[in-house]
Amino acid sequence: MATVATLHQQLDSRLEKDLLGEDWVPADAYYGIQTQRACKNFDLSGIPLSHFPQLVNALALVKLACARANNELGFLDNARAAAIEGAVRKLLDGQHHDQFVVDMIQGGAGTSTNMNANEVIANVGLEMLGHSKGAYQHLHPNNDVNMSQSTNDVYPTAVRLSVILKHADLVKALASLRDAFAAKGVEFADIIKMGRTQLQDAVPMTLGQEFQSFASTLTEDIDRIAGLTELLKEVNLGGTAIGTGINTDPEYARLAVNYLSELSGFEFKRASDLVEASSDMGAFVLFSGMLKRLAVKLSKISNDLRLLSMGPRCGLNEINLPAQQPGSSIMPGKINPVIPEAVNQVAYQVIGNDLAVTMAAEAGQLQLNAMEPLIAYNVLESIRMLTQAMDMLKNRCVRGITANVERCQELVDQSIGIITAVNPYIGYENTTRIAKAALETGRGVIELVREEGLMSEEDLAEVLSPAYMIRPQRRRR
Amino acid sequence: MATVATLHQQLDSRLEKDLLGEDWVPADAYYGIQTQRACKNFDLSGIPLSHFPQLVNALALVKLACARANNELGFLDNARAAAIEGAVRKLLDGQHHDQFVVDMIQGGAGTSTNMNANEVIANVGLEMLGHSKGAYQHLHPNNDVNMSQSTNDVYPTAVRLSVILKHADLVKALASLRDAFAAKGVEFADIIKMGRTQLQDAVPMTLGQEFQSFASTLTEDIDRIAGLTELLKEVNLGGTAIGTGINTDPEYARLAVNYLSELSGFEFKRASDLVEASSDMGAFVLFSGMLKRLAVKLSKISNDLRLLSMGPRCGLNEINLPAQQPGSSIMPGKINPVIPEAVNQVAYQVIGNDLAVTMAAEAGQLQLNAMEPLIAYNVLESIRMLTQAMDMLKNRCVRGITANVERCQELVDQSIGIITAVNPYIGYENTTRIAKAALETGRGVIELVREEGLMSEEDLAEVLSPAYMIRPQRRRR
Amino acid sequence: MATVATLHQQLDSRLEKDLLGEDWVPADAYYGIQTQRACKNFDLSGIPLSHFPQLVNALALVKLACARANNELGFLDNARAAAIEGAVRKLLDGQHHDQFVVDMIQGGAGTSTNMNANEVIANVGLEMLGHSKGAYQHLHPNNDVNMSQSTNDVYPTAVRLSVILKHADLVKALASLRDAFAAKGVEFADIIKMGRTQLQDAVPMTLGQEFQSFASTLTEDIDRIAGLTELLKEVNLGGTAIGTGINTDPEYARLAVNYLSELSGFEFKRASDLVEASSDMGAFVLFSGMLKRLAVKLSKISNDLRLLSMGPRCGLNEINLPAQQPGSSIMPGKINPVIPEAVNQVAYQVIGNDLAVTMAAEAGQLQLNAMEPLIAYNVLESIRMLTQAMDMLKNRCVRGITANVERCQELVDQSIGIITAVNPYIGYENTTRIAKAALETGRGVIELVREEGLMSEEDLAEVLSPAYMIRPQRRRR
Amino acid sequence: MATVATLHQQLDSRLEKDLLGEDWVPADAYYGIQTQRACKNFDLSGIPLSHFPQLVNALALVKLACARANNELGFLDNARAAAIEGAVRKLLDGQHHDQFVVDMIQGGAGTSTNMNANEVIANVGLEMLGHSKGAYQHLHPNNDVNMSQSTNDVYPTAVRLSVILKHADLVKALASLRDAFAAKGVEFADIIKMGRTQLQDAVPMTLGQEFQSFASTLTEDIDRIAGLTELLKEVNLGGTAIGTGINTDPEYARLAVNYLSELSGFEFKRASDLVEASSDMGAFVLFSGMLKRLAVKLSKISNDLRLLSMGPRCGLNEINLPAQQPGSSIMPGKINPVIPEAVNQVAYQVIGNDLAVTMAAEAGQLQLNAMEPLIAYNVLESIRMLTQAMDMLKNRCVRGITANVERCQELVDQSIGIITAVNPYIGYENTTRIAKAALETGRGVIELVREEGLMSEEDLAEVLSPAYMIRPQRRRR
Repeated sequence: MATVATLHQQLDSRLEKDLLGEDWVPADAYYGIQTQRACKNFDLSGIPLSHFPQLVNALALVKLACARANNELGFLDNARAAAIEGAVRKLLDGQHHDQFVVDMIQGGAGTSTNMNANEVIANVGLEMLGHSKGAYQHLHPNNDVNMSQSTNDVYPTAVRLSVILKHADLVKALASLRDAFAAKGVEFADIIKMGRTQLQDAVPMTLGQEFQSFASTLTEDIDRIAGLTELLKEVNLGGTAIGTGINTDPEYARLAVNYLSELSGFEFKRASDLVEASSDMGAFVLFSGMLKRLAVKLSKISNDLRLLSMGPRCGLNEINLPAQQPGSSIMPGKINPVIPEAVNQVAYQVIGNDLAVTMAAEAGQLQLNAMEPLIAYNVLESIRMLTQAMDMLKNRCVRGITANVERCQELVDQSIGIITAVNPYIGYENTTRIAKAALETGRGVIELVREEGLMSEEDLAEVLSPAYMIRPQRRRR
Repeated sequence: MATVATLHQQLDSRLEKDLLGEDWVPADAYYGIQTQRACKNFDLSGIPLSHFPQLVNALALVKLACARANNELGFLDNARAAAIEGAVRKLLDGQHHDQFVVDMIQGGAGTSTNMNANEVIANVGLEMLGHSKGAYQHLHPNNDVNMSQSTNDVYPTAVRLSVILKHADLVKALASLRDAFAAKGVEFADIIKMGRTQLQDAVPMTLGQEFQSFASTLTEDIDRIAGLTELLKEVNLGGTAIGTGINTDPEYARLAVNYLSELSGFEFKRASDLVEASSDMGAFVLFSGMLKRLAVKLSKISNDLRLLSMGPRCGLNEINLPAQQPGSSIMPGKINPVIPEAVNQVAYQVIGNDLAVTMAAEAGQLQLNAMEPLIAYNVLESIRMLTQAMDMLKNRCVRGITANVERCQELVDQSIGIITAVNPYIGYENTTRIAKAALETGRGVIELVREEGLMSEEDLAEVLSPAYMIRPQRRRR
Repeated sequence: MATVATLHQQLDSRLEKDLLGEDWVPADAYYGIQTQRACKNFDLSGIPLSHFPQLVNALALVKLACARANNELGFLDNARAAAIEGAVRKLLDGQHHDQFVVDMIQGGAGTSTNMNANEVIANVGLEMLGHSKGAYQHLHPNNDVNMSQSTNDVYPTAVRLSVILKHADLVKALASLRDAFAAKGVEFADIIKMGRTQLQDAVPMTLGQEFQSFASTLTEDIDRIAGLTELLKEVNLGGTAIGTGINTDPEYARLAVNYLSELSGFEFKRASDLVEASSDMGAFVLFSGMLKRLAVKLSKISNDLRLLSMGPRCGLNEINLPAQQPGSSIMPGKINPVIPEAVNQVAYQVIGNDLAVTMAAEAGQLQLNAMEPLIAYNVLESIRMLTQAMDMLKNRCVRGITANVERCQELVDQSIGIITAVNPYIGYENTTRIAKAALETGRGVIELVREEGLMSEEDLAEVLSPAYMIRPQRRRR
Repeated sequence: MATVATLHQQLDSRLEKDLLGEDWVPADAYYGIQTQRACKNFDLSGIPLSHFPQLVNALALVKLACARANNELGFLDNARAAAIEGAVRKLLDGQHHDQFVVDMIQGGAGTSTNMNANEVIANVGLEMLGHSKGAYQHLHPNNDVNMSQSTNDVYPTAVRLSVILKHADLVKALASLRDAFAAKGVEFADIIKMGRTQLQDAVPMTLGQEFQSFASTLTEDIDRIAGLTELLKEVNLGGTAIGTGINTDPEYARLAVNYLSELSGFEFKRASDLVEASSDMGAFVLFSGMLKRLAVKLSKISNDLRLLSMGPRCGLNEINLPAQQPGSSIMPGKINPVIPEAVNQVAYQVIGNDLAVTMAAEAGQLQLNAMEPLIAYNVLESIRMLTQAMDMLKNRCVRGITANVERCQELVDQSIGIITAVNPYIGYENTTRIAKAALETGRGVIELVREEGLMSEEDLAEVLSPAYMIRPQRRRR
């Protein structure tokens, strides 16, 4: 055995131990034995924690907030508190993220993630204190870094913070895409076209109104995401194992939450019922539902862009999407709406991810939800994919969209739906009759109304002018 | 108390008792105290068991099969067996279905459904024996009608049989809809039109090919549904409470399953592992997945019908769906594709129902799945809705569809995609260049090819004839 | 033909006509030809509009608001306005709801629902004016009742109002269930029991804390539902066909929305972008997501109740659920947790319904979402089922729950998890070692700590008292 | 410009062009301009095609099959055919997989994947022919490698083949997990324990029966997956752009499919309706539904393992799962069921992925389904995750499970459910009464039956022996 140990030392390993026994850890690893066990146990998503830097940063901030609270209460001495702070600062600077190696999908309710953070912070701190890695008597992953904490309160808190940090990217991409649509709304403000309901010709509108509506619907989601992010600021920090706060000082929870607010810049508040807050995933369910809503909207918009650009010669062809790549390996000259198609697919994935979140949330039992790692993974991944998809849609599609003005006008001119505008003047039954006649004979509705002498020429001219039809109008008497 | 009892008798009630105590049941009710308790407990879906006559019939057949097995083994005397058979025959004749009053969504893993059947059969049987209802000493719901049985084997068996019975309606509607599409495939066999991929103009095809493809895709599902129905014929009858067959004779399970096959006309077989079969809902998950697949196909077809009939003047307008109702309360003359729209909605509901089935199946625990009533409800309801939707689609839409032949031809003539056919002759790069030129200049691709002298007139004429393009062709050398 | 007409009159029918032609309507029907066509077209859910009285009332209120606006603007004369108001009042009194006969699942984006309302209101109004039904020249379903309206603005508005009206039931049931849990929280405040995380023994808590946590989690949802209901108060009334407000006076939308607020008592506001608001289903997606969240919570709570009451002799058996019905047709004396099981199933159905809503929302195209009827149906149905399920859970389960105090105490006494409390005193490694020893030897952790003399008797006594462990404590020095 | 070109050459780039113009491609890249455009367009999943080697291999095999068919028909000369074959062989040897760089989630219906394959094969082939990369006049990605093909037939065919190739891993892991459970079934064959239905004590069984039931349920899925894989062998190869076979020889499709069968070793068959087969995703929907079913079963099994191992002192504690990592950062000695928890999460993800597949399948339009890349991604990813999860479950959990024999026996001895066995002897009402008395008094059911003298001692002894209760028994008379 001594030989093996010697060999390991030569091979640059160090010996660590935990509840289950001893194991050799690479000497240069900042993570420790528990992280290593988790890596051996879980190879599922293939996505390590470090894939989401915001999660690493969030863990670091939570650890620092707790260390400060423990230090202030006199449980953690200044040297150790300073070492933890030093290690956390390095993580926040982007260092050592590669040490967060555990798979995002993991059993254990996040314990492996928490221990990964505890071990890395301990070893980075030890190094800063001049000790060798693994010399945990000077700074212990559990006794010091995890002091007054349980995975069951720090992990949910860190996941919430990571989503708050990451959602900023999402909102930025969303606002930027909204602006791109709004700019097109302005650009296309004077282009008259047919509106369609149930895919059937309805009444005229402007292409600008159509694009502005995309901007409007996304604007609502900016507000709504902001609102729901607030829910994530209610945390169970201080509840420890099951929300009862066992092993904490009565002052601790308040202090830790205050420090977290101070350090993160977000106004966190302690959940009023920490037992409830320890197992409840409701905030994530609703937030994921909101991501799903955004996905639904983006999918609908993408469908519309694809419908409006159908063609080039055998479809609506009202707009042109910018060409991004040849469309076919066999059909020369074919250009496809590849960007909106990719957005649709991201949307479907986000909707699928929301279901995974829902099932994981439902699987909570008694004082904990052991499935929270899956929730964290899917929420962060959906945010990431939506962000990428919106940037792609803006840069590679929306900004380059052009209108086929004449085609739009031509369709309005030959439409039947414009007869709707004379409804208030000659009544639903007359207009219905004329619409039917137009359809059967192939003639224009305006000439038919004129032929029957149902309205004065003057009224007819005004009422049937497209500009008249795109907004409310005082009725001519 | 005597007074109350007297009053009840005057009010035409009878007193029954069970594990929880006594209660008054309406004198004319064939169901008993346990059914009545269930009605008080559950008012959730609002849909009683009698809504699905196939479920009542299936319960009746299972009870009769068990009675025959018990009688043959000598546990159930001839008089009681005959009474059970008489009662079952009445149910199969459609009598007393209104006595199956429990809500389809119920706790208890189907116990209330089983007891509803036991009580009704007992009381109908008692009446046939000349006894009054409730005189269970002569024919007991548990000791006789439920002899050698547990809810946990008879309920899953009956649900399987009910799905098998009901799926016949589905297959009939499916085959009939398929025939309607195939007839249109023949009717439209000579109409040339543009095929479209990714909503962009592709290459020509016939409208007949398009409609035949709808028929083909539905044909596959007829086969597939038949195949999956086979899985439902593996039953856990004889497993009683947890699949160990407690309280049954070693010969009983074989006999009961054989009688069930004989009575129902379907070849049932006993699951090889009755413990597994008692809690496993896998056959329903897959069957529901198949209903979901059919829903997906119907939704895609409905979307296509709506796309092809876009217009009447500002869309593809290749086909006309028959008008079924005025389309708008404000836009005169508007006709909407209301039938396919309704099919889409049924499809979404079926997909939602499949999720409910999935979650219920996942919630099985240890030796039973207590959520089977929800599975039964959703599978039967999805079958019902799909059947109705397919009949509606066939009768009120497909059969009346007409083609706009000239419009179809016009779109082909002006398309660019037909250049694909010359690809093998002049190469991908030449055709790409010409396609691009056509798009930019608005000119026709045929004239551009001709102009460049890239192909002989003879070749060109043949290769670009629509008939050439709708099937494989030996290349001209 | 005259003969047929005569025959129809004798058979108490009246002749009506619309865009598609003429048809006979039952003479006593308040609905008209368009409603009748819809009934023939759609037989899908089997649930008529009248199943949701709040939807009928909402339609009535919207119609009245529009009539008042039209009257104020001088487009609708006083007599007709009064007739409409009279008819609406009758509907709000619960009269004629049986005339709302169209299936909840329907094609046409709600046109059939809108026309059902228009026709019933017209005919009830005609009767009040002394005219016979069908004499639409005096009060016309389209020209008068639907004046300045389109299905595309009044239907979405009415659906939103119906959800607002119906959600009151939901919130009431939710608050009442919450109160029941809170009462148990108080009742069980002094019962010490083991908390469990990941189904493994954790640290002590009180049964009161556990039940209070159920109350707390439901309290959050009361607030959240209220918040999301606000989103439903943004309406597209006045947008008519596609949100451009064609056929309306510039003052109309403002007036109509104001009247709707006044009549309903809810503060509605006009969407800032009516084009967007005409096709967007985002508010429903989020609201349904919230219903899903509530379903997830109720399912988790039901699972917990079932876990805690496992037994009676071979499980946790910490609590007893009140017996509601005999649990088995074969196992005498068995009582099952039928009420929570039924709640689980409702939860799964609501989650499935949310998926149907999501798919329908995603299927919106261009200026409208034709699938809104499915959204309305599922949202209203989910509210209804959740309401019923919560009332059932409260009345038939929660209120009757009793605790097995001795069993709870016994489990705490023999647990290992209580060693967590000495962690801050003797360190993670010591406690880990002792926990392991206890597990292997079957001995108690307290005696092992004592044996090793790691803490003073005094400290030990206090720290390991259950009361010490259920909340934060100032550490003994 | 010349300067830029020079610079690029110095920087080891080569110039390529396509429909959209020219671009510089890294000189050492085997992929070309179209692949590069796709990489710029799509950065969504972060997962490149090469993540699934089976997909690369499948593309290679399809390309080779087509080349052989083209060669046999005389369209592709021997030199080019040999070059393609040489390139394909290298890919099948695992070379150049890193050149498959496009994101799995992509617009364009797989065109970018197909072009990635075409370009890599062309350039590898060119190199083998002694030409430089990009010298496409000697071997052209479209004209030669893609000859007689369209993305719309080769991509779906390759995806199907990739799933068939990959599912072998799944079946192997599944069979191996099944064997592990079956081995435990044998090991635990003589351990009597209580069965539970609805989480309530039911009747006795053996722990072996319980574990064998896990093996049995997985065995069914081995068969079922095999059956559904057959559906994937029906391909649309030869249909080209929209299934009409444009640009192909009448003999080509048959030849290509035959060569694919020969090369892959799987018996492929050409779809009878190639138009239908070009857009239909039904086989994937059903296959994904089957993966979902497997996920549901694995989740149920994992839930059971977690329930049975609840404890160690305050739960069922019938079995012990092997410890894989310390369970808590705060609670010393705690071991959690981390492996089954991770399986649950994988199952939820697979169920979510199935929804993404469903939505993508429903989004097919007219002659194509543009969302197939998402379907391919999710099906392959679900297979991968399920395979990993099952290996993990087998190696890190099932094989190390041990039974607590005494605990199991103790629970049976004190149970009430064993009274079920005397039901056939003394009737449902007597047993119910005794069960109730046992529950109320805390006494044992056997002593109560004995006390009442309802059965002979001899009968009682036999009937209530556990061995009697775990299988059907001839009734004692």
